[in-house]
Amino acid sequence: MSIIGVGLLGGSIGLAVKASAMGCRVVGYGHRATTMAKALEVGAIDEAAASIGEAVQGADLVVLCTPVGLFEQNLKDIAALLERGAIVTDVGSTKRSVVRLAQTLLPQHVRFVGSHPMAGSEKRGVEFARTDLFQGARCITTPTDQTDPAALESVEKFWQTLGMRVTRLSPEDHDRLICDVSHLPHAVAAALVAMQDDAALPLAGKGFLDAARIAGGDGGLWRDIFLDNRDHLRASASRLRQTLDELLGLLEPGREEALRTWLDDAATRRERLVQQKLRELNPD
Amino acid sequence: MSIIGVGLLGGSIGLAVKASAMGCRVVGYGHRATTMAKALEVGAIDEAAASIGEAVQGADLVVLCTPVGLFEQNLKDIAALLERGAIVTDVGSTKRSVVRLAQTLLPQHVRFVGSHPMAGSEKRGVEFARTDLFQGARCITTPTDQTDPAALESVEKFWQTLGMRVTRLSPEDHDRLICDVSHLPHAVAAALVAMQDDAALPLAGKGFLDAARIAGGDGGLWRDIFLDNRDHLRASASRLRQTLDELLGLLEPGREEALRTWLDDAATRRERLVQQKLRELNPD
Repeated sequence: MSIIGVGLLGGSIGLAVKASAMGCRVVGYGHRATTMAKALEVGAIDEAAASIGEAVQGADLVVLCTPVGLFEQNLKDIAALLERGAIVTDVGSTKRSVVRLAQTLLPQHVRFVGSHPMAGSEKRGVEFARTDLFQGARCITTPTDQTDPAALESVEKFWQTLGMRVTRLSPEDHDRLICDVSHLPHAVAAALVAMQDDAALPLAGKGFLDAARIAGGDGGLWRDIFLDNRDHLRASASRLRQTLDELLGLLEPGREEALRTWLDDAATRRERLVQQKLRELNPD
Repeated sequence: MSIIGVGLLGGSIGLAVKASAMGCRVVGYGHRATTMAKALEVGAIDEAAASIGEAVQGADLVVLCTPVGLFEQNLKDIAALLERGAIVTDVGSTKRSVVRLAQTLLPQHVRFVGSHPMAGSEKRGVEFARTDLFQGARCITTPTDQTDPAALESVEKFWQTLGMRVTRLSPEDHDRLICDVSHLPHAVAAALVAMQDDAALPLAGKGFLDAARIAGGDGGLWRDIFLDNRDHLRASASRLRQTLDELLGLLEPGREEALRTWLDDAATRRERLVQQKLRELNPD
């Protein structure tokens, strides 16, 4: 199999595949020689390809792990070199665009399945790659009516072997729902940091640091995601504004009980989510 | 000393005082008998007073640890019973109102100092009290020109003995700055949870859980804080909206580099804050 882009995610896929019983040879490609050397050193890949074309030749499975904004170029670069029957998937945080691009750019004899393994970190680079990064986390696959069912099953089995729970969504549903639970929270966390006075920031406690943690991601990666999903991001932000206005509207005399109930409801909803996640991670 | 309201904070103060070299007797008062029994059982207090009045009689230091909305009643209840020279402080997350109330309601022979020890948890109740809750965290004191300097020093020394770093701010600066780093982030976290579709929430990952953690606090406590600081909360929310609009404005063709820089700047600012906090906690 081939991993295109050997950073935190690509490197962790390599480590996890090699730790699994799959027993397949992992070929990696990245444009920085230092990254390739590091990936070989930590054992994330067996072989560093000299070019993206060389990386995919003979591969049964190719996983695109570059930033979302590079997928178009990646697909163009590999389209003519992929084996007949090869399966291509990706790890992008947006799915409409890559699914559309794959349908347009890849030849008929290649099978594409969109994937979004929801694991990661605000850290970046193969030096932070971890064998267990995907363990217990969710992977969303985004088949369309053009997706080959056998390829879909293979890709889902691949993520399951890495310890992931797989959920299927349409590319459209994926981008809309993930915007609400991931892209918007990232934008809000970044805005919460950006709006602070220099006098306020040193007063921040653990709560603020937790709330702002997701704002620590790489600007280039998130730029690509935000631009690719900008229609949903605008719509989600507008719904957040409405919800916040609803809350602020309760800061009026006579609404004390409604305000308390509103805050308790949010706390309860969050607590239920935490309990659900704990059950998912510890099913016994 | 007396602790009025023996929940997570009051109970942790009791545990920390008794673990310290202060060697003073801790009298607690809470309106629930079960809480008092639990507080005695975990060793957070030496004695459970039968009434708030009994709790403060003879006390050199009284710490109000009830929700912000109860301070007015607490001060009225204890005003006539406090010893000459007694020091009263509190742990409230807002400071303008309690400082004003103390100036109005307490007799001249009693000295009040506003405090905000910035430690806590989304958990609630004396059963979660911890001896080390305050260790390494910040406490803000809010003296005014009417504050007795010796009482201010005593109160600051008290928090320092519990392991806290003390910062002085005016009540007004406190409420404005803490709104930005604590009250607004709480409101936003609650709104992020409240706005979610039932279909989106199960897709939430670790990033969302972290961002939403502070929304887990008790609705009654936060209702009081929001109502007491509503002017600042509205102003802070409005500034967040502007900052978010600024970010969304960069989702336009030709602004790609500016968007990346904006996101990288927020990530860098957050990272600097994390490093600063780590240095504060591990000064060596």
